[in-house]
Amino acid sequence: MKPILFSLLAASLFLVGCQPSSDSASTGPSKQKVARQLAGGLGPLPPVEHPADNPMTPEKVELGKMLYFDTRLSGTERVSCATCHNPSFGWGEGVGLSVGVGDQLLARHSPTVLNAAFYTHQFWDGRATTLEEQAKGPITSPVEMNAKPEVVVKRLQGIPEYAERFQKVFGEPVSFDNIAKAIATYERTIVRGNSPFDRWAEGDDDAMSESAKRGYQLYTTKALCITCHSGPNFSDSKFYNIGVKGSGTVDKGRFDVTGDPADLGAFKTPTVRNAALTAPYMHDGSIATLEELVEHYDKGGEDVPNKHPLMVPLNLTAQEKADLVEFMKALTGEPLADQTLPELPY
Amino acid sequence: MKPILFSLLAASLFLVGCQPSSDSASTGPSKQKVARQLAGGLGPLPPVEHPADNPMTPEKVELGKMLYFDTRLSGTERVSCATCHNPSFGWGEGVGLSVGVGDQLLARHSPTVLNAAFYTHQFWDGRATTLEEQAKGPITSPVEMNAKPEVVVKRLQGIPEYAERFQKVFGEPVSFDNIAKAIATYERTIVRGNSPFDRWAEGDDDAMSESAKRGYQLYTTKALCITCHSGPNFSDSKFYNIGVKGSGTVDKGRFDVTGDPADLGAFKTPTVRNAALTAPYMHDGSIATLEELVEHYDKGGEDVPNKHPLMVPLNLTAQEKADLVEFMKALTGEPLADQTLPELPY
Repeated sequence: MKPILFSLLAASLFLVGCQPSSDSASTGPSKQKVARQLAGGLGPLPPVEHPADNPMTPEKVELGKMLYFDTRLSGTERVSCATCHNPSFGWGEGVGLSVGVGDQLLARHSPTVLNAAFYTHQFWDGRATTLEEQAKGPITSPVEMNAKPEVVVKRLQGIPEYAERFQKVFGEPVSFDNIAKAIATYERTIVRGNSPFDRWAEGDDDAMSESAKRGYQLYTTKALCITCHSGPNFSDSKFYNIGVKGSGTVDKGRFDVTGDPADLGAFKTPTVRNAALTAPYMHDGSIATLEELVEHYDKGGEDVPNKHPLMVPLNLTAQEKADLVEFMKALTGEPLADQTLPELPY
Repeated sequence: MKPILFSLLAASLFLVGCQPSSDSASTGPSKQKVARQLAGGLGPLPPVEHPADNPMTPEKVELGKMLYFDTRLSGTERVSCATCHNPSFGWGEGVGLSVGVGDQLLARHSPTVLNAAFYTHQFWDGRATTLEEQAKGPITSPVEMNAKPEVVVKRLQGIPEYAERFQKVFGEPVSFDNIAKAIATYERTIVRGNSPFDRWAEGDDDAMSESAKRGYQLYTTKALCITCHSGPNFSDSKFYNIGVKGSGTVDKGRFDVTGDPADLGAFKTPTVRNAALTAPYMHDGSIATLEELVEHYDKGGEDVPNKHPLMVPLNLTAQEKADLVEFMKALTGEPLADQTLPELPY
């Protein structure tokens, strides 16, 4: 725990040091736009990087999109990636916990796929590090899509258009590895940036409301958000116990992956980008609105074992809470260029 | 039964009478396109009619689209109209029988919504006559979406953007009737016409392959398809027992609505338009491909009680079967202008 605490405090100090520069561009004599110096590495998203062993091609993206929406990747042939990571709900789930096989409630809420390309760990507990590895998880999970890889591979290979597309894209027949590679490549295109915040960060003073600008100041200082929700994607891809009820008791989170008591009840920092599109919040979807989310942090979270020491009451005023919500709303990126559904072959 | 048989025979005679004129336009001296005289009322789709008590407005279509894709119209909040009437599978279901509450297999296969606006009866057994009435069925069915109208109404009314949109579109708060009206209005836009067949019907000789043209001749004569799959939407919206295994025993079909023994095991004539997009086929989704569909008719169907007397072996040659498949493929309409997914409010 100590190293985490130290780095958090160091980040906080760094912030305080940076703070005055964050608005300097808007006070210059010229109207020329100058990118702002922002705290904690916040700022416009860099280009998405594709791994060397799975380079991007437009044909692979197209194939990955088809697979993402294809229910035949599941045991019942009725569940696709898009079922729980639903584009209509910000590529996440509009409601609390996921529902799995036999309509049973699962332990966690499906996180958004939006900007997942920027995480160094995938899943709430980080049990995968790449999107390729992640994609295989829900397909084979007995409580989620519950499919046997060999059944899915045979099924897709039996659909002439898929067989042809895999051959063209990968130079070989359908395989479970290639299914995952195509889906991961498609997911790396599911990115929303160029939000009002980004335009403001690039020097456009009018891109965010005054309330959102105050929200930015709070985000990077008093509200402590920046401690974990840092970097261009507003996430450090690390794991914290932030006092969500049941963390460490009902759900041990990252501890189940590492066995490290410091990780008890810790979950991955989700991106704050596009948060207005991706309600509800937390690993269990237990917080319905951005307003309630701010209240959770304001009170320092619930009393759970191993809660992070920075989860303390913030004593935010009503105006400050409203400003934080406005700032989060200013993180909604531009719609994807392609919001169409694919037509699937038989 | 007798009146049906009589009308079928009358239609067949009518056909034979019309047949010579069906290709006459292509043999004229000028290259000017002349719409063909086709058998059985086949031909391009007329404009969709909206009922007087539910007129179309663009705002209503937009609202209906949101509702169509919104999983919160179901009891578990995880099933939308689009779950079983999936745009990626031709607005139907890519696989056999529908799956309902608790992953149980239901009795029937979800039919496509494409061109449903042209039916005079909805559902396989025609238990609804309007799309408005139809829309309410699956939402409240205990084995399908399993929602209570008052719960759905309250849920949507609690989402500010929905409350506002209903007020604007209907001049009143959310109601179950208005939910159904909006969905029905949207569904009346889910129409694909202007297929190669339609362009050929309008006089473009090159719009269909020679095989498809032979398929048209077979469709309207020897293969007897036109007996029921007539009119611009290739369906008479009536009910027949066509010898699908289990018809009249496992599933009594239209009989359950009318109580008329003549309707035992009878199901509504589905449109043949866009059939290449809407596999599998039949009320139980038991036929996987267009080729197998032709085989079913060629052998006169399975031996079931109350099978229609025209379900007799057709003795089609391999070439004739292939030509029928080519003709059905020429009935795939132009993609919808709008194939995007909506973003849903919270």
